[in-house]
Amino acid sequence: MTDARIVTLQNRPKGHPTDDDLTLETRSLPEPGPGEVTVRVQWLSLDPYMRGRMDPGPSYADPVEIGDVMTGQGVGEVIASNADGITVGDTVTGMTGWASHANLKAGDATKVDPDRAPTQTCLGVLGMPGLTAWAGLTRILKVQAGETVVISAATGAVGTVAGQIAKSRGARVIGVAGGPEKCALATGEMGYDACIDHHAHDTGDAMAEALKDTAPDGIDCYFENVGGHTLSGVVPNMGMRGRIAICGMVAWYSDRNSDQALPLPAVWRRILVQRLVVEGFLVFDHWDAMGEFQDEVAPMVRDGRLHYREHVTEGLENARAAFVEMLEGGNTGKTLVKVAD
Amino acid sequence: MTDARIVTLQNRPKGHPTDDDLTLETRSLPEPGPGEVTVRVQWLSLDPYMRGRMDPGPSYADPVEIGDVMTGQGVGEVIASNADGITVGDTVTGMTGWASHANLKAGDATKVDPDRAPTQTCLGVLGMPGLTAWAGLTRILKVQAGETVVISAATGAVGTVAGQIAKSRGARVIGVAGGPEKCALATGEMGYDACIDHHAHDTGDAMAEALKDTAPDGIDCYFENVGGHTLSGVVPNMGMRGRIAICGMVAWYSDRNSDQALPLPAVWRRILVQRLVVEGFLVFDHWDAMGEFQDEVAPMVRDGRLHYREHVTEGLENARAAFVEMLEGGNTGKTLVKVAD
Repeated sequence: MTDARIVTLQNRPKGHPTDDDLTLETRSLPEPGPGEVTVRVQWLSLDPYMRGRMDPGPSYADPVEIGDVMTGQGVGEVIASNADGITVGDTVTGMTGWASHANLKAGDATKVDPDRAPTQTCLGVLGMPGLTAWAGLTRILKVQAGETVVISAATGAVGTVAGQIAKSRGARVIGVAGGPEKCALATGEMGYDACIDHHAHDTGDAMAEALKDTAPDGIDCYFENVGGHTLSGVVPNMGMRGRIAICGMVAWYSDRNSDQALPLPAVWRRILVQRLVVEGFLVFDHWDAMGEFQDEVAPMVRDGRLHYREHVTEGLENARAAFVEMLEGGNTGKTLVKVAD
Repeated sequence: MTDARIVTLQNRPKGHPTDDDLTLETRSLPEPGPGEVTVRVQWLSLDPYMRGRMDPGPSYADPVEIGDVMTGQGVGEVIASNADGITVGDTVTGMTGWASHANLKAGDATKVDPDRAPTQTCLGVLGMPGLTAWAGLTRILKVQAGETVVISAATGAVGTVAGQIAKSRGARVIGVAGGPEKCALATGEMGYDACIDHHAHDTGDAMAEALKDTAPDGIDCYFENVGGHTLSGVVPNMGMRGRIAICGMVAWYSDRNSDQALPLPAVWRRILVQRLVVEGFLVFDHWDAMGEFQDEVAPMVRDGRLHYREHVTEGLENARAAFVEMLEGGNTGKTLVKVAD
């Protein structure tokens, strides 16, 4: 028996989740059953999609039930194994939830090679956020060399990878990020051609003006992570036969900023007149591309061509606050909780 | 010299065009220049896209200039020819404008075979509206047998053809139309599987309920002609990986009904969660398919498998009123002005 600290969902949040909604408690974890392993979680991934799982359905996945551990992907060390092929001391990743320890079925645990890259990159640049970026650019937007691509949340976990892949494919890449530091990071080590600060352009009209100056010939592809006033600025600048891939809409999560939205008729008209394609996608439909994605991106990470940042919060007890900070745009790069050494 | 009656645009309309905006006058038409023909217009097509041309740009085509003849497609008899290959007595179609007579360049005039079908069908079921329906179903929605397809303005010039082509390809086809007579026509001779009266379901919620009852497994394809509260009912019923082809949004033309629109965040969320594809298209991009379209549809018209209606107004002096009536949904089938015998 192991004592596991876990974060459970106690209420469906109104707006951002509070400490009353997500509470830390200790439960004893049984020994792993047949075919199971016990993982001592070292890193927990925090991702915007989790906000949707706190709401009642329907969505693309079942909501977390009241009283259950909050869902999430972790990586850590196997400390007990009752499964063939996984031994104590192995590092694995899987849906551990927000927890210090979890039992996983062997089929739901993926071994991570600590020599390839720091193990927590399997939660970020080489994991779900990276694959999200790759799938959005490759399968949805089908970005071509010479096209103008706008990426919102440009220095977030997904945007970081999306911007650099788009650049490596010969696109002109414009980021949108919150604040001069993030913009400097984007146009600096991440290689964006330009980056617009959405704090300094805090209305749809101001964002539209800035994008018009930066992309005078129109936007071919928009990698949509945020909604809100950034989208209001993007829509009137979409070029002929442009594409929008909707990956997320973090500005509108927790029912916030709903006043920052163009009227639907204006958006519909732009789609019609410019012959746009707007497509929603979820990374869960694209796991089959994980190998192809890693073949392309892992070498870029290894030889330093692809830069990434990690936004680390220490301790599971701080996970909720870190999650809210991320929804508010307070992170740069991949948001992680360091649960244990 | 011929005296031509023409309808000119005098003002950019606020809302629907009035008699002050579109005025009938008589101008003398010069003899056809080299390579030109003079056409005595017999039928004029009225189409919703014309409302957009009355507004100042930018749009997908230049606006009609103040003082110019209102744009439009006509069909009629050649009464003078200064062009090789077209002789007096031929029937041709082209962009005559709202006019009793017009000079066309030979390259802009297409001969119409009066033995194939009534000549005015080149303005409707075998012309631009028919091709619009075909292209939307074939190239944008890519409708498959067994899918559930919803078509708004179901008995309009485009919807009439779209519904019957979709049905002939094995889809389950649900129309949306205004009033019990149109619905009876849709489910009667036009063969729709069901038709929902948007007058009887005059809010988004009511429309959503009716569509949920009629398409309990979700909508695979939506052929969008109207926007407004019909769209509000469609969006929450779109099924996984559904497609929306935006062809028109007549409820929102003339700046009407903008209150009948879902908030953009709700639409964006549905696109994301259901992995929808929303695509705008214009028939002008699909003229290359005219032959393929006519090869499929002309035999259906000839042998009576494809039913169509014409909504005929007599006299160019009544064109404006007929146009507004069409925008208000007062037409059934193709809206035509009979300009002369």
